[in-house]
This record gives sequence, structure tokens and C-alpha cells, in this order.
Amino acid sequence: MSALSSVTAQLTGTLGPDRVITDRQRLRTYECDGLAQYKVVPGLVVLARDADDVRTTVRACAEHQVPFVARGSGTGLSGGALPQAEGVLVVMSQMRQIREIDIENQRAVVDPGVINLQLTGATSPDGYYFAPDPSSQSVCSIGGNVAENSGGAHCLKYGFTTNHVTGLDLVTPAGELVEIGGTAPDPPGYDLLGALVGSEGTLGVVTSVTVRLTRLPQEVRTILAGFRSIDDAGAATSAIIAAGVVPAAIEMMDALAIEAAEAAVHCGYPDGAGAVLVIELDGHAADVAGEFDEVMHHCQDNGAFETRVAADDVERALIWKGRKSAFAAVGRISPDYIVQDGVIPRTALPTVLRQIADLGAEHGVRVANVFHAGDGNLHPLVLFDDSEEGAVERAEEVAGGILDLCITNGGSITGEHGVGSDKAKYMPRMFTEDDLDTMQAVRCAFDPDHVSNPGKVFPTPRLCGERPGRQQGAHPLQEAGVAEVF
Amino acid sequence: MSALSSVTAQLTGTLGPDRVITDRQRLRTYECDGLAQYKVVPGLVVLARDADDVRTTVRACAEHQVPFVARGSGTGLSGGALPQAEGVLVVMSQMRQIREIDIENQRAVVDPGVINLQLTGATSPDGYYFAPDPSSQSVCSIGGNVAENSGGAHCLKYGFTTNHVTGLDLVTPAGELVEIGGTAPDPPGYDLLGALVGSEGTLGVVTSVTVRLTRLPQEVRTILAGFRSIDDAGAATSAIIAAGVVPAAIEMMDALAIEAAEAAVHCGYPDGAGAVLVIELDGHAADVAGEFDEVMHHCQDNGAFETRVAADDVERALIWKGRKSAFAAVGRISPDYIVQDGVIPRTALPTVLRQIADLGAEHGVRVANVFHAGDGNLHPLVLFDDSEEGAVERAEEVAGGILDLCITNGGSITGEHGVGSDKAKYMPRMFTEDDLDTMQAVRCAFDPDHVSNPGKVFPTPRLCGERPGRQQGAHPLQEAGVAEVF
Repeated sequence: MSALSSVTAQLTGTLGPDRVITDRQRLRTYECDGLAQYKVVPGLVVLARDADDVRTTVRACAEHQVPFVARGSGTGLSGGALPQAEGVLVVMSQMRQIREIDIENQRAVVDPGVINLQLTGATSPDGYYFAPDPSSQSVCSIGGNVAENSGGAHCLKYGFTTNHVTGLDLVTPAGELVEIGGTAPDPPGYDLLGALVGSEGTLGVVTSVTVRLTRLPQEVRTILAGFRSIDDAGAATSAIIAAGVVPAAIEMMDALAIEAAEAAVHCGYPDGAGAVLVIELDGHAADVAGEFDEVMHHCQDNGAFETRVAADDVERALIWKGRKSAFAAVGRISPDYIVQDGVIPRTALPTVLRQIADLGAEHGVRVANVFHAGDGNLHPLVLFDDSEEGAVERAEEVAGGILDLCITNGGSITGEHGVGSDKAKYMPRMFTEDDLDTMQAVRCAFDPDHVSNPGKVFPTPRLCGERPGRQQGAHPLQEAGVAEVF
Repeated sequence: MSALSSVTAQLTGTLGPDRVITDRQRLRTYECDGLAQYKVVPGLVVLARDADDVRTTVRACAEHQVPFVARGSGTGLSGGALPQAEGVLVVMSQMRQIREIDIENQRAVVDPGVINLQLTGATSPDGYYFAPDPSSQSVCSIGGNVAENSGGAHCLKYGFTTNHVTGLDLVTPAGELVEIGGTAPDPPGYDLLGALVGSEGTLGVVTSVTVRLTRLPQEVRTILAGFRSIDDAGAATSAIIAAGVVPAAIEMMDALAIEAAEAAVHCGYPDGAGAVLVIELDGHAADVAGEFDEVMHHCQDNGAFETRVAADDVERALIWKGRKSAFAAVGRISPDYIVQDGVIPRTALPTVLRQIADLGAEHGVRVANVFHAGDGNLHPLVLFDDSEEGAVERAEEVAGGILDLCITNGGSITGEHGVGSDKAKYMPRMFTEDDLDTMQAVRCAFDPDHVSNPGKVFPTPRLCGERPGRQQGAHPLQEAGVAEVF
């Protein structure tokens, strides 16, 4: 009997057959997440109802050394929830209850399967919301947001998921349920919350999330500004930030992205724009008014030839429609595309965008740029036609080259989509072996047997060494270097 | 030859005798940090000039299994830099250079010994500053701020040190120099920065810190409001926060603290006040104006019988003088006192303050309260007279009891002073054994031999177990439970 068969038999017995999927056809539903280029049919799916189910499942896996992968709504874009053929996929989407809303202390406790916008829906009647806003927020789960440390257009002002999580319940890879953090700020001991948020499922399975709620702004003002060039739009962005204004969002789109959006949703962006900025201000009415004057001034000062201000929610929605539909809209001008995700220091924007254009030209590949300009988080869309010989390879080369540009310009290989299955191979371009070993030492502390979402994040998982230190000067990280698990 | 003698000989040879202090009289200078109730003369002191010195020292210690403790300016209030008699104290205060200031990207790179206000001094001509503001900021080091995750009066709006650090260079306890984080937001891999900031020297020695710079506010407005009772002041605080205003600071002092401050610095706080609030607003002029109206409204609505607004910097300084001198001022009304540090949910303030008063009355001990009301960070001052029989024991019982009150009301045992030597014994009141084991598993990943600031934070250090997992279901954390190192 294989290890997986033992786990299957054990879990079917303890959880009951309706919690456990073994039918090949049904298993296929879970073969990928939002990054469809990688597909693996899981060996077994468990539909967890509560933390006990998760603990039971993880314990069975630990006992038989069977890998497990947790999955929320499956909207991730780096293949972080890609299953294992000989492993268990723990589906968290049925754990979808909001456990507690404490408006006075601005906290909520939710199951990991709770949908991002579901929490905002439940708290907005009281004037609060959950700030992280990935574009998948109407379907993605908060557990998934925690795993990937999700961001969104409004992260410039409000930060990433990690800035909004104050506590987690976690089933460790050994099957222990521990509480990390809580509702109080700055608890004593190591701040493991930070390490867990964004750990992409490699340190265990989160079964409860305590989040900070944010006050809904009194006023929101949305500005659309058309510029002749990316350089002008970049200069305006820098001027706004340098003035000390922190807009809720500053989004940029280049000419090709604008063309795609116009073709798809007729958003009516300024004619002849080489770039547009969508700038959103929010907060107290008086604050917004003051910031608005500054933003308009810096846009005009840096060559904005047209600016529009949304007069109401309908006009605001139209401005955002162009931006939000841009990814899908690119389908109108290209049969296939890769969504890349990288970060650069904001001030390197003009340089990197020129380098991206050069790189595309060199390979005969078109690249549309849609990005969070305020914090330098790029989302280049690399266009290709799969029916053309060698097109996908060229596109992948350009997509990879863009990450190299991000690194050499002082940035990083992912802004908010995560490393997952997709970018593990790029990690050594960014980190030294010592750096990666230090991270993996932490992984070994939680998951010495590499059963928790193995194969993600790290390109070469390392054997978690023998107890070191008795030999003088030796260190687990150095010792581990001699052997690779896979 | 003892292990320490070997290390001493080795370091005297490699670093030179002027970097190494062995003279007992000179060693005594370093016997304690800001918490003078614990004293240990270090076995050896190394004055590090650069990261290489730190690496050399740590490697020698690792080789001979000799414990080491890093020390910045020695202002910590939890005994985090308490030396080891048979160990090495690595003094970082000579590494005091600001390496880089990048105004455009709002970043600076500093040596760990750089003084908190030194960085603000260097960046304020360009309109920026380093936001964390512990009251020791004119002398404390940024490396120490990182070790303790220091906060200050303005953390309500600006967050703790952890919110302002984007990268660290760290010498691991095995003597490897690794880079954690950098200048880009949200780098891939585990966010170990969060775990390192506030780890109180137990995971290695930081040799470089990359920090975020914050724009100096255009306008600052400081309000002093007198209330008849703590309850009224607490209600005003809650109303302000609930309205969505985030002041830079909301500080509260009770009648006894006001009495002490008046006796010492004649700050002229409102006569007959049972509590005062010091509220500071900062930001764009228009924002501050709008928030000011709201704050005044909520103060008056909740029983403020007198409000004053600082007309200029002199008046502002006078308002803050009362608050900032409160700790020292307590010396005017009591020969001795313990400064406690705890956190509670802001909404529990009135309840906990009543419970503290009851606890003090029960033991015949006076307690003055000075605290960051906005985020529920309490600093009760427990007064006693050491010349009275049993007084110190009673005071310590009350100080400990206050922490219990913090825990039972959903808070924590330290807000910003850290656990250090002082509060390790309280950790099991807050965390389960599994929780502490999970933290210590991370400690073992970095420091399996417990040489990096041992005896701090954790009440019972655990043996870092054998490689687990080959036995089915076993786990290092469980196995480690059987043996204690000390």
C-alpha cells in the first residue's frame, strides 16, 4: 500500500467519504490555480470544515510523509496552490464563516476561506472595510491573501495583507495547532506573523485569521490624467510622492495597454495619450481637498494635457473600468499573453520601462505595461501568439528578462503574486546561497520533512541537517549544503 | 584554559588589544543596561568597528561555544543587553556612520550604532525624519531599536520600528553575514525581517539597517485637554479613534502622574484634572485643520473642562514637558518606582485602570499611570520606598499583577520595552507550551547552540533536538520538550 493510499484510507475513515474526493474526474477540477500553465491532478482532495479537519489531515500526512498543499479559492497567479500528484490538496473554501466582528477595536476574526469582499460587505454598514484589494477580491479567499501576502491598487497607502493581519491560528506541519499573534499590537516573542504571512503554504495551514478593519474614507476623489509619454507620467508620480501626498492609488497604463482597454471596454481615455495615470485620493473631506490641489498641480506641471475628475460613482467606475479590465482586455489585441509581476524602486520607473521596451523590440515581442506606479510594482503583459513557431519561448525569455531588469535596478522578482511554482527558479538571481539557506533553516524549523507545499518558493530544497554545533564551528546551514532532497 | 580565555586570546590577537576590554574596572561599565536592577559584569567586551569585527567575534564565540550579547547604547528597559559573566559583550556604539541617504526613494542605510535622533538630524534639512521615537531617542541606537522593536508616543500613527525597517545585514550565530530584505517593498521568500526586528539579539547581530524615511509634516498641532476622570478621557480617546481620526499621538496621564509632573517641571496642567490627554495632530495643513475640529468636538463632548492649543513651539514643548518628564518626575513624590509596560485593547482602558487602582489599594501601593492611550500601551509607575520593610516585594507583586490584568483583558506583557531578562518568566502566562516551542524552533534554526544572547525572552531554553521525522509522526518541538539546556 502506498503512503498516499494509507492516508486516503485513514482520512476516509475519520472524516467520512463526503469530505474526501478520490474520483479522478472530480480531482481534475483542482489541477491548477490561476496560473493555468502548470497542471497536476492531486492524489487526494480533502474538503476541510474546521481546524480539526485540517489537523487530522495534516497529522495523517505527517505520519506517512505525504505532502500536502492548502488551497483557498484557487485564484493565485504564481502556482502556489499547484497540487502534488502523490499528495493531498486541503481545500479551505468551505471554512467560510466570519467568526467575530469587533468594530470598536477594529478587528475581525475570520475563517481562511472567507472571501476578501465578503468581509468588507459585512463591515461596511458599520463604516469599516478590509483594506487589501487584489483585483480578484470578489472571489479570492483571505487565507490565500495571507499565504501570498496579497496587495492591490490601494496598497500604496494601505499596505499589503501583512499590514492588516494581527493574529493567525496555524496547524504546523507536525499537526499542532498554535496561535501566532492576537489582537494586541506588538506581542512579545518573535514576530512570526510576518514570516508566516507570505510564506505560501510552506510553514503549515492557517485555520483562522484575525485582521485589522479600516475606516471607510469620508471622501474619495478619482483623477484620470493623460500624458504624452511614460516619462512625463513617471515624473508626475515622483513629484506627487515627493510632495508628501500619499494617494490611495496611483496606477499607470502605457499606450498599448490603453489601446487594449479602449478596444474592450470603451473607457474613453484621453486621445493620443502615451500614458495615463489613475490617481485616487481618500480620507477626510478637508484632507482630500488639499491633496487634490497638489496632485492637479503636479500633473499639470509635468505635462498632463488632459485631466478629468470623476463627478460621481458612475464616472469613477468608468475610470477604474479601463484599468481593471486591462489584463483581460489585452486578449483583444493578442491571442495569448503572460502577466509578469515585479518591483522596482519608484524612481527607476522611466529607466526600467525604456529597458523593457528595448528588450521587447530586440525579441520582436510586444509588451503592454499596467502597474502600480506609486510603489513601483510593475505588471508587464508580454503578448504572443501561441500558434506561431517559437513565440511562447520568445515571450518567456522577455518575461524572464524583465525580472532580471527588476533585480539589476534594485527591485525584486515579485510584487504581489508570489513565488509559488513559477518563480522558484529566479530566487538564486536575487539571493545568495547563504540568504536562501537562512530562509530554509526557518522552513526546516517548521517542516523538517518538506511535507508542507514542497517544491514551491525554493529552487533547491535542502535536507534539514543533523543537529549541528558539536563539531566546532559547523552549522546546520553549511552542513545541509551537501545534500539535496529532490 | 577556559573557553572564554581561548576566545579572549584569539580576539586579542586578531582584533588587537585596543578593541578588546579585559580590565575588570572597565568591564564594570557595561554591567547593566537601562534596567539597573539586574547586573552582571561581562567576561569580555569587544568594541566592534565594522561587520568584519562582528563576524570575527561571533565566529570565535561559535567555535568555543561561548555566549555573546550585542549592546547598542544600553538604554533598554527590559535588561535585553544584560551581559554574561562567562560571555562576550559586543559593543556596537562605535559603528555610528550613516552610510547612505536616498531622499528620492525615502531610504537610508545606517550602522547599528547610529543614534535615533542623529538620523533625523541628518535628513530633516531635506524634509524627512526617522519616525520611531522612543523617549530615549537622543541617546538610543537604531540597532537597539531594531532589537527591541522600539515604539514611542507617535507610534499610534506611524507604527513601531518594524514598520520602518526594510532591510538588515545580520551576522548569524554561526558567523555568516546574510542580507535580509532590502529597499524594495515585499521581497519574495520568507519575510524574516519581521521575525528579526524585536528578536532581542537572540538570532544574531545586526550590522547594517536600511530604514524608511518619513516626510516631515507640514503642520503640527498639539492639544492639552483636562478631564474630571480617566473614564471621561478614555471615552474621548475612543470617540476620536472611532471617528476615523488618527492623531500622531494620544497620551494620557492620571491625577498622580500629573501631580508628580507639576512638582517637577511646573507644566501648568489644568487644575483639578483627574486625567489629561495630550493629543498631537500632524500632516498637511488642511488635513490637520479638519481633524482638529473633530478632536476638539469629541473632547468637549466627553467632558473636557479645559482645552488648550499650543500657539507655537514653546507652548508645544511645555505641554510635552509634563508628559516626557513624568517618569523621572515620579522621583519627586516617591523615592523608588518600577516602570511597567503592558498593552491592552484600547476599549478595555477604563476597566483595566480601575482594576489597577484596586490592585494597588489592596497592597497599599500607589500607582501612577502615564500611557499611550491611542493604542492601549500602558506605562504604570509603581511607587515604593525601598527603606520600608517588604515594600519592594509588594511593589513587584503589584507590577506583576498588572501584567496579569493586561493578559486577562486580551492584551500583552510588553508594549515596547521588550521581554529581555525581566519578563521571560511571564511568557508562559501568555503563551502555551506549543506556542513557545514554535518560537524556539525558529531560534534553534538560527542558533542551535544558544550562544546568541541566551537566557533572554524565553523562560526555559530548550535543547535543539536531533533531526526528527524519520520516526513517524515525531517532531523536533515535541522531542525537544524532554530536555532543558540550563
